[in-house]
Amino acid sequence: MSCAVSEGGVSNPPWPDGLENPSSDGEKCGLAHPGSCERETASHNRQNFDNPHFAFEIHVTDWSPFDLPLTDPRHPFHLEHMAMALDEARAAEAEDEVPIGCVIVSLKKGVIGKAHNQRETLKDPTAHAEMIAITQAAQAMESWRLEQCILYVTLEPCPMCAGAIVLARLPMVVYGCTDPKAGACDTLFRITNDPRLNHRAQVIGGVLAEECGGILSAFFAAKRRG
Amino acid sequence: MSCAVSEGGVSNPPWPDGLENPSSDGEKCGLAHPGSCERETASHNRQNFDNPHFAFEIHVTDWSPFDLPLTDPRHPFHLEHMAMALDEARAAEAEDEVPIGCVIVSLKKGVIGKAHNQRETLKDPTAHAEMIAITQAAQAMESWRLEQCILYVTLEPCPMCAGAIVLARLPMVVYGCTDPKAGACDTLFRITNDPRLNHRAQVIGGVLAEECGGILSAFFAAKRRG
Repeated sequence: MSCAVSEGGVSNPPWPDGLENPSSDGEKCGLAHPGSCERETASHNRQNFDNPHFAFEIHVTDWSPFDLPLTDPRHPFHLEHMAMALDEARAAEAEDEVPIGCVIVSLKKGVIGKAHNQRETLKDPTAHAEMIAITQAAQAMESWRLEQCILYVTLEPCPMCAGAIVLARLPMVVYGCTDPKAGACDTLFRITNDPRLNHRAQVIGGVLAEECGGILSAFFAAKRRG
Repeated sequence: MSCAVSEGGVSNPPWPDGLENPSSDGEKCGLAHPGSCERETASHNRQNFDNPHFAFEIHVTDWSPFDLPLTDPRHPFHLEHMAMALDEARAAEAEDEVPIGCVIVSLKKGVIGKAHNQRETLKDPTAHAEMIAITQAAQAMESWRLEQCILYVTLEPCPMCAGAIVLARLPMVVYGCTDPKAGACDTLFRITNDPRLNHRAQVIGGVLAEECGGILSAFFAAKRRG
């Protein structure tokens, strides 16, 4: 039995397949909540009836990955939308485009942009998935400011797209795999976090990284085979 | 009398208004041609009839600013197209947009892209002058590769636009004034010259810089006055 977010009687929560459960081993609980938390201590099961703050019991089934903060890459909100971006990447692949997909979600309106790379189809060097999705999202919001929105993309944005993210005032970017050749959030540049620019975005990398990278590797391997 | 590009009898060439003539004072000729060139030396006027390489005379009127290499910011090709980009910037101002204009010229086809900033009008954070002009030019060339093209823009490109310039394989970028807040060719980043990326563009800054900066300063001063 291990600690979860809430106080009271708790046990191991269900965990998404393929993701490491931070509380499945080790001595400390890996989840963020007030105070330190040793596993298997009596306090976890004790019902503090005398303390008004603990005058209730939260059952095992109440734990959910949704209790994770949105800054956690394992949050189901991120997994759900990255899977959607992966579907877009597959749509790109079906058009013989480099398989990269992007989804933009407004916390108020839901999905407001969904696009894939269309450089060859549109014969346009600016037609990256992120750029098309940002333009779509701005139309949906009727504003060039995409505040309260999150951008999901299967590959780390390039300098152009990272620059567009800053210009759109997007507060959060979630990407799948890193791009060693042109990555501009973490790898080659840190444009989205540069203190000299007039906006910074929070960046979360590595969400469904294996799937996001796998579809790219398979695409280029097939190209090399001709 | 001073030296110009050609051998033989030469004198002061006509020079575009508002630009410093590098050979109008000082002891050395400022123009690029083989060998060093002292002003007012006899050799400039001597006709080398005995030398087959000098068996002709080029008259004063033969000199032209077109003799400058295209890498020279004073080349009339650059001045002409930057003036066109300035007209686009004025069109932006008329629409109450930040006055920035861009022109793309194909060495084969001439002007194939001409646009101004339309962020507010289109409610699109990606609608910078360069981005619109790049998309136009790619349509004209029926290719996302803008090889043999030159991009002219009144303000130093931002990270988004500098990234797009690299992606479009543009070999040359000519800009007017620098951008201390977001310049990504020289000032804050050098994205167009980064050896880690798969393309580099030659960058020429400061062409009609005073006019390009002046229209921006006047626009923001008027905004501050309300």
